Amino acid sequence: MRPSGRAPDQMREVSFTRHYTKHAEGSVLVAFGDTQVLCTASVEDGVPRFLKGKGQGWITAEYGMLPRATHTRSGREAARGKQGGRTLEIQRLIGRSLRAAVDLRKLGENTVYLDCDVLQADGGTRTASISGACVALVDAFSVLLERKRIKEDPLNGLIASVSVGMYNNEPVLDLDYPEDSNADTDMNVVMTQHGGFVEIQGTAEGVPFTREQSDTLLGLAEKGIQDIVRKQQEALGW
Amino acid sequence: MRPSGRAPDQMREVSFTRHYTKHAEGSVLVAFGDTQVLCTASVEDGVPRFLKGKGQGWITAEYGMLPRATHTRSGREAARGKQGGRTLEIQRLIGRSLRAAVDLRKLGENTVYLDCDVLQADGGTRTASISGACVALVDAFSVLLERKRIKEDPLNGLIASVSVGMYNNEPVLDLDYPEDSNADTDMNVVMTQHGGFVEIQGTAEGVPFTREQSDTLLGLAEKGIQDIVRKQQEALGW
Amino acid sequence: MRPSGRAPDQMREVSFTRHYTKHAEGSVLVAFGDTQVLCTASVEDGVPRFLKGKGQGWITAEYGMLPRATHTRSGREAARGKQGGRTLEIQRLIGRSLRAAVDLRKLGENTVYLDCDVLQADGGTRTASISGACVALVDAFSVLLERKRIKEDPLNGLIASVSVGMYNNEPVLDLDYPEDSNADTDMNVVMTQHGGFVEIQGTAEGVPFTREQSDTLLGLAEKGIQDIVRKQQEALGW
Amino acid sequence: MRPSGRAPDQMREVSFTRHYTKHAEGSVLVAFGDTQVLCTASVEDGVPRFLKGKGQGWITAEYGMLPRATHTRSGREAARGKQGGRTLEIQRLIGRSLRAAVDLRKLGENTVYLDCDVLQADGGTRTASISGACVALVDAFSVLLERKRIKEDPLNGLIASVSVGMYNNEPVLDLDYPEDSNADTDMNVVMTQHGGFVEIQGTAEGVPFTREQSDTLLGLAEKGIQDIVRKQQEALGW
Amino acid sequence: MRPSGRAPDQMREVSFTRHYTKHAEGSVLVAFGDTQVLCTASVEDGVPRFLKGKGQGWITAEYGMLPRATHTRSGREAARGKQGGRTLEIQRLIGRSLRAAVDLRKLGENTVYLDCDVLQADGGTRTASISGACVALVDAFSVLLERKRIKEDPLNGLIASVSVGMYNNEPVLDLDYPEDSNADTDMNVVMTQHGGFVEIQGTAEGVPFTREQSDTLLGLAEKGIQDIVRKQQEALGW
Amino acid sequence: MRPSGRAPDQMREVSFTRHYTKHAEGSVLVAFGDTQVLCTASVEDGVPRFLKGKGQGWITAEYGMLPRATHTRSGREAARGKQGGRTLEIQRLIGRSLRAAVDLRKLGENTVYLDCDVLQADGGTRTASISGACVALVDAFSVLLERKRIKEDPLNGLIASVSVGMYNNEPVLDLDYPEDSNADTDMNVVMTQHGGFVEIQGTAEGVPFTREQSDTLLGLAEKGIQDIVRKQQEALGW
Repeated sequence: MRPSGRAPDQMREVSFTRHYTKHAEGSVLVAFGDTQVLCTASVEDGVPRFLKGKGQGWITAEYGMLPRATHTRSGREAARGKQGGRTLEIQRLIGRSLRAAVDLRKLGENTVYLDCDVLQADGGTRTASISGACVALVDAFSVLLERKRIKEDPLNGLIASVSVGMYNNEPVLDLDYPEDSNADTDMNVVMTQHGGFVEIQGTAEGVPFTREQSDTLLGLAEKGIQDIVRKQQEALGW
Repeated sequence: MRPSGRAPDQMREVSFTRHYTKHAEGSVLVAFGDTQVLCTASVEDGVPRFLKGKGQGWITAEYGMLPRATHTRSGREAARGKQGGRTLEIQRLIGRSLRAAVDLRKLGENTVYLDCDVLQADGGTRTASISGACVALVDAFSVLLERKRIKEDPLNGLIASVSVGMYNNEPVLDLDYPEDSNADTDMNVVMTQHGGFVEIQGTAEGVPFTREQSDTLLGLAEKGIQDIVRKQQEALGW
Repeated sequence: MRPSGRAPDQMREVSFTRHYTKHAEGSVLVAFGDTQVLCTASVEDGVPRFLKGKGQGWITAEYGMLPRATHTRSGREAARGKQGGRTLEIQRLIGRSLRAAVDLRKLGENTVYLDCDVLQADGGTRTASISGACVALVDAFSVLLERKRIKEDPLNGLIASVSVGMYNNEPVLDLDYPEDSNADTDMNVVMTQHGGFVEIQGTAEGVPFTREQSDTLLGLAEKGIQDIVRKQQEALGW
Repeated sequence: MRPSGRAPDQMREVSFTRHYTKHAEGSVLVAFGDTQVLCTASVEDGVPRFLKGKGQGWITAEYGMLPRATHTRSGREAARGKQGGRTLEIQRLIGRSLRAAVDLRKLGENTVYLDCDVLQADGGTRTASISGACVALVDAFSVLLERKRIKEDPLNGLIASVSVGMYNNEPVLDLDYPEDSNADTDMNVVMTQHGGFVEIQGTAEGVPFTREQSDTLLGLAEKGIQDIVRKQQEALGW
Repeated sequence: MRPSGRAPDQMREVSFTRHYTKHAEGSVLVAFGDTQVLCTASVEDGVPRFLKGKGQGWITAEYGMLPRATHTRSGREAARGKQGGRTLEIQRLIGRSLRAAVDLRKLGENTVYLDCDVLQADGGTRTASISGACVALVDAFSVLLERKRIKEDPLNGLIASVSVGMYNNEPVLDLDYPEDSNADTDMNVVMTQHGGFVEIQGTAEGVPFTREQSDTLLGLAEKGIQDIVRKQQEALGW
Repeated sequence: MRPSGRAPDQMREVSFTRHYTKHAEGSVLVAFGDTQVLCTASVEDGVPRFLKGKGQGWITAEYGMLPRATHTRSGREAARGKQGGRTLEIQRLIGRSLRAAVDLRKLGENTVYLDCDVLQADGGTRTASISGACVALVDAFSVLLERKRIKEDPLNGLIASVSVGMYNNEPVLDLDYPEDSNADTDMNVVMTQHGGFVEIQGTAEGVPFTREQSDTLLGLAEKGIQDIVRKQQEALGW
């Protein structure tokens, strides 16, 4: 039995609220149950130095957590004067995943910043961030197309992400915080809407896991990602 | 004429949404028009070193702005590795203002962190933050009273804050971004619900201002603060 | 009675020693009683990036305190690796105030750095800094005129600053450290020599203050600023 | 064909040189071909604060790269004033992996620091680091047992790590730098000597990968890890 | 001929102004010609952790330069967020030199901070700092003796410092800025009043120097240090 | 008697292993007994801004110590976020010393980075670094000549460095760690192969030293440096 009463292969309530704030080219509040992340896509002229003159664009991500998004208040990274390892790891993952969804040549010499700020955390903030950032990115591309800053849509297809894990020896989908903090194995999976794998990160927290378990978990992730992609499509009116 | 069409002494739509997130002892989304700030109050045992053993509590504030809360994206302070002067100035103001609303001895040796994070900015983020943080603080005190961690309510009364300024030679109340960026004089005022002044910060952006103008602006601020206090009271069900 | 025996509307001994050090274009040691600040004005070619090509100059300030300027030694900000919130707040105030004294277009694409370093502190370091920096700025403009780097004097007029406050329920002028650390209300005022207000920053330390008190304090500040301006003029031989 | 002429399932020359430096409790130079990493294990009394009094030990890792370990010199992180995201990600991975090899309760309240410093880089520095750190850890445990600071060997078994990837549409084992910088998919795998998975991190650099490819790559990794474990055992004289 | 017209073995005008500021236990303005450094000695209870419980005291130094102490303005280290290598090198030298003048056991578990802040620079700021800090230290020890915080004077004797160098192939004493920036060899020497060497730091800026030159320079330094010690004694009324 | 049993004027075993790693233009492992430092020379196009357009090159050094190069582990500077004073002092010394060995005009607008990373420390890491960096520099110059990036060899001659000191009242050559930590006087000397002095840094750790002692120590250093230069020449096949 899961603490939330969900079936093993049942996602939390997933929603994408577009145009959540008004300044960004894309602005989406994504909710995976009580996990809520504000994902904005901001477009700037130009690319980082290592790409100058190569005729392609760039997509990068930053991740943050409001101090009281969590059960107990965690110190503000801006006040501590540096981003922690977990933050850097997550924002590298988000950027890498979204770049896999895009044909950077069609983006021209533009940079898209994906800011994922967690307003409320209950497990799965990185998977919600990736899934929400993709919708914000789609909206930003629409703005660029409307403003004729780009000619073709750079999107190769939607991507989404979900966590799966072994909880009480059972494979479960979309771990919430009580599950996440007690799971034996935790795996974050990023996939395209067409079923290709973009990233697999599986970690044994205690007992090592087997290849069979890995296989079962990947199957569960595929199912969850199809659910999320459907929600993304609904939100986008596709 | 004001860009928004408001009367000179007219506030923007002000609202306080309590219990906006679930983990914090107090969590309020405050809106002054399109300016939206999430204010949380987090209670921790103990006090900073300089207060140890003095039998009183402490209230401190931190302020942040999501990177795309503004028209153009501004760099993330956590990524730059330090908080800017404007951020430090505002969070010092919020902390000082709220301490003026509280009898710190009744708080016992507890510290309340007031986190004000701007989700969307359209002028007046510091005045909205102070006004919203006060409501979050009231909710946090209720929690402390319920949990019997304190015996008496430490609140001396509500405080609120508003900006006033000279715009096109006219005194106006509650400047939004288009006004704020073109005002000759900008004044932020913090007051108690009983009409006492907690803080006055007036700045001439171009032409110096006169004592008569200062006097008129303070009168306008008094009016606006009464409006805000009424909204705070409604939100609190008082 | 004031600890120093001064009358309520009596300034401390104020002096401006020009050409205090030899390298800077302007170098003034300002003393408000035992508060001593070395203010230098340094001129550099060019302007910050956000002003490039706009045909105007820039004035900025930095503030520092020698570690043993105070009763007990305070840590060196360079050693701690960052400037504190109080420092940033004061240097922003100094820069903003002095820019109000100057026609930046007449300055051409030059930047003036105003460095205010407190050698000895006894209350009122920010007001002394502003008042001294103005004299250093006048000297720097004279050098620029002599060297024909500018054609017209950019100065609109002198500015000066003083603190006023409620001490033992009495309004007093130019608070020294024993008064400052016990005042109920503390107000820093910056004015032009012609009586215009550039900045008002009033703070209730304990009990809120009334509009009448604010009014009385502003009157006292006007008196003090006239005294300081007279001393500035004497020092400049005007 | 691989640039090195190796067969698809062929490891580079792997070696572990124990007692490479003299001060550390464990000191191992690990080579995966031209990739050379100095791994030291340093034991200190006590544990981090979050573990105090829980009767268990801790294992943590730090990773660094000498500036000219790479083809072109990369800036020294100590000079830049912070560790990059890649560094933090790798050292978190090393620490997490090695903790999976150990029964922390048998370690008592001791902390082992695993320092992995890359002397020469040619792809696979993180997998070499994990494999070498494990041998250094075994040596450190022997020292602790000899000195009677612990009673039982905390090691659950050896762990090792290898990379696998899709290079020119072929699954290959133990990517060197020319392969790594051109691979479509890159997967780092950490396993126990008994064949359990500790960590899987697979990333599609360009084209997404399929579940079949993932499966093939895991099989290849299992083979490579058995080779490395055999080398570890030889070096340890087991 | 020297730019200043001084004889090769002639010091600049040296002066020590005691009680220059009022808060510090020792406060001395030292001038070596136009080089002016404010040296304060601040006493605090306790010692750094590595000395706790050893029944001895500690002396440490910090060095700073006001931004416009120099011909062209140099950036403020507090604003840049770190102390430069030259600053750290000089303050390590000052601390080490002064500890050589003191019996740390007689100081008890007290720490003396020697802050040397350069108000105006014209060459020789480190040698002036050491010579001035010694006088400030003597004054601080007198205060400690008066307040009965220590029983015996910890001073072993005065120390002083001077620079010597090869300028236009001539050995010269006490280099000012025009000499220092053109010298072939620059040597800073710290000695006790009894003629013992505490520190010798000689550097060839261009052509290497010979042992004979080194010998001549040391003789010149001995002469200069005797002059400085005489001035220290006069200032102290010894 | 010396702890190592060496004669007072006897160096430790000195060796230079060239081409120790493969990427750098020069790569030398230098050993002074158990002190082992990896010195690499990396050539980059261009010079720092202050040298732009002057038609000369630049040589700079960075120094680091692996965390467990020492008896007890010392914190990683990259993790602490800044280089300590000792590190900065040493790398300034290495850079200054090597620049004295080179005609920077013959180097053209190229910069050579000398990275000295201590793998194992047993006293004398800075003197070994300088001596090893010189050999790495020679190799880098050969590469530049071969690649026709420079026309003439910029080397003026070899330089080397050694420490000397008073240990148990005896002058000794090349102090190892047990001697270094107990010496009364410690002197680091840098000389050219032709016998010219580049740098002398002598420090009295306890009792001041005399001019005679200084003289004796310099003589001993001359002897040691001749030994080291001979080893450098052997390694280079000169």
